[in-house]
Amino acid sequence: MSPPKDSPVSCVIVSRVRSGVVGFVGGGQLARMSAPAAEALGIELRVLAQASDDSAAQVIPHVTIGAHDDLAALLSFAQGCDVITFDHEHVPPAYLEAIAATGVAVRPGPAALVHAQDKALMRSALESAGLPVPRWRIVADVEELVTFADEIGWPVILKTSRGGYDGRGVWVIDSAEQAGDVMSTRLGHGAVWLAEQMVDFDFEIAAQVARSPHGQAVAYPVVRTVQADGMCSEVVAPAPGLSDALAVEAQEIALRIADLLGVTGMLAVEMFVTPAGLFINELAMRPHNSGHWTIEGAITSQFENHLRAVLDLPLGSPSLQAPYAVMVNVIGADVEDLPPVHTALRHVLARDPAARVHLYGKEQRPRRKLGHVTVVGDDVQVLLERAHHAADYLSGAIDE
Amino acid sequence: MSPPKDSPVSCVIVSRVRSGVVGFVGGGQLARMSAPAAEALGIELRVLAQASDDSAAQVIPHVTIGAHDDLAALLSFAQGCDVITFDHEHVPPAYLEAIAATGVAVRPGPAALVHAQDKALMRSALESAGLPVPRWRIVADVEELVTFADEIGWPVILKTSRGGYDGRGVWVIDSAEQAGDVMSTRLGHGAVWLAEQMVDFDFEIAAQVARSPHGQAVAYPVVRTVQADGMCSEVVAPAPGLSDALAVEAQEIALRIADLLGVTGMLAVEMFVTPAGLFINELAMRPHNSGHWTIEGAITSQFENHLRAVLDLPLGSPSLQAPYAVMVNVIGADVEDLPPVHTALRHVLARDPAARVHLYGKEQRPRRKLGHVTVVGDDVQVLLERAHHAADYLSGAIDE
Repeated sequence: MSPPKDSPVSCVIVSRVRSGVVGFVGGGQLARMSAPAAEALGIELRVLAQASDDSAAQVIPHVTIGAHDDLAALLSFAQGCDVITFDHEHVPPAYLEAIAATGVAVRPGPAALVHAQDKALMRSALESAGLPVPRWRIVADVEELVTFADEIGWPVILKTSRGGYDGRGVWVIDSAEQAGDVMSTRLGHGAVWLAEQMVDFDFEIAAQVARSPHGQAVAYPVVRTVQADGMCSEVVAPAPGLSDALAVEAQEIALRIADLLGVTGMLAVEMFVTPAGLFINELAMRPHNSGHWTIEGAITSQFENHLRAVLDLPLGSPSLQAPYAVMVNVIGADVEDLPPVHTALRHVLARDPAARVHLYGKEQRPRRKLGHVTVVGDDVQVLLERAHHAADYLSGAIDE
Repeated sequence: MSPPKDSPVSCVIVSRVRSGVVGFVGGGQLARMSAPAAEALGIELRVLAQASDDSAAQVIPHVTIGAHDDLAALLSFAQGCDVITFDHEHVPPAYLEAIAATGVAVRPGPAALVHAQDKALMRSALESAGLPVPRWRIVADVEELVTFADEIGWPVILKTSRGGYDGRGVWVIDSAEQAGDVMSTRLGHGAVWLAEQMVDFDFEIAAQVARSPHGQAVAYPVVRTVQADGMCSEVVAPAPGLSDALAVEAQEIALRIADLLGVTGMLAVEMFVTPAGLFINELAMRPHNSGHWTIEGAITSQFENHLRAVLDLPLGSPSLQAPYAVMVNVIGADVEDLPPVHTALRHVLARDPAARVHLYGKEQRPRRKLGHVTVVGDDVQVLLERAHHAADYLSGAIDE
């Protein structure tokens, strides 16, 4: 079934039964949740996973075991794929260039993806384009951080420019002493210290868009997000309390960033809502936790639109299917001797026949994203109660 | 990860990451479309497929190649599964008993499933229970058929009691001569000739219910179905033109049959709507073509409720998510030199961003079910136009 090596896109052209071959680097839940969209559209998914029991490797037949930072593994995996895309941002940019040099499409491309990999480059590109970002500065040492904080006011946010995720690599800094403790740790390869204004926000939102190589783009309804311990924990679509004007502005910001950086696939832009307007926090160029609600809540899920976009197929409708969708993450609780997931699932499904449960096939560990629950309807408070109960029960945080 | 051989249900009990192991006999599109529900709930699916490129084998990692009528293959496949279920009705009843004897649950069980395998047994059981069936008789030869037809009026329907599907094994008989031609063919093992009244119906409907081993049942909205050339081609949910009273009666008939026969999993009951009321046509004890609309049109799809039912998990809500859902099958057209599916897909997705396309990964062949398209909304005529255009374009029946 593999195409000739000198013609890596030929399987799109010749296949009578496949709509394309998409290779996901990384075997986490984002690749896993792409499987249903691939199944529906007749797209063959392949996964480069760290281990055979990775979340995505449990449900996708074409699995290659290998590391995302092993060039030989990446090049071998890419052969026979029409396009390579990503479950995470951790593939070194030079390796992405090497894959692209073999003729296999890499989407998002290295020149775009580096802005999701490196927060200093991202801040610089967005600021140059006149987009609203918090005040920020690259700081070489504690002295430079203190100078910055004295200028804009304590506390400040300190980040590593590369390698952080889910709250890792981000600190709130109150004092020079604390900065010294954090900055005494060694930075990863290519990373710098980034100091940022701590934005006093009313709430957080995320705007998601899909953009394809020929430039078509669609914008999802803007959502309100709640972070807990640095991780996304709750999403409401559309964002309650967000004015129409700010919602449109947030969508325009996301569309502008997608175009500016040449993003292909899904782009999530996390933003702060403040009395002074919107400020851009983070970017992700892949399906994102803030878009899991789209599986049931939108006509076309973020996972399907990511696949359509990277294959340059026409994009699907991002419209809401219900007045509101609420998604709450199942995050591993710090408790011992949990019952098996089957037992908790039975309780949750019996209590709420309309709850949509997603489990990622992961062993329970404290602070680990194990799944999520989505409910749709018209009363946000009721939806929040239902989704939190189900998620907290599945995580082990509550047992009644 | 496999449980001990003497304790085939133990993996439900001990697993921290799996919600159960379900083995599908048969690798067609029904097993394939079960994969998303299994992915979401953390259920491990396994498939006994005829070939590695079977529809379901393309998207499910745990594939065993083997025949559904090979007892050794069935027994080997069943080891390590919590429950065995089916993509089709073709497994010999004695082999189902043999699997059950090893301690692996078989759902639906052989005593129920035989009524979906054998139309004569089905007719007899339903008639004995006082349920409305067309007039019918087992006929040994042409003479008995002519006697029956002379009694109730020509033409009559002639069926093989076993082995038919999608219009195969069913004939409309106008004359003794035609009956002679058909009945000169050899019947399959255990089959008899079944003559039935040709019902003069207004339209056809299907009622689907899910039932679990502990007796919980849910009923989906009753749908209107259109058959073309003996195959389901179009489904509208809920059935336009069906009175509330008949819709409730149809659901009650389906629930009663599920209980009467001890069905576990999904049951579809196809019925004729006539001026004299409802008449039961066929039964299927698995996800069914008349329920594909539930993937997008209902809170819980028929595929998820089948998995929940066979694992004895609480059932999900069968409620509609939109006023109407329309599903049209992509049935291979009889044309040569079709463009690759990718090309047709591009046209369809571009024309209708809200169309939900499902492709089964099959080579195009005339009269073959290659996929389906579902659209949801509030104007049935518009939905029918959209779904038929998309399906006809994907099938090759139209090219503009």
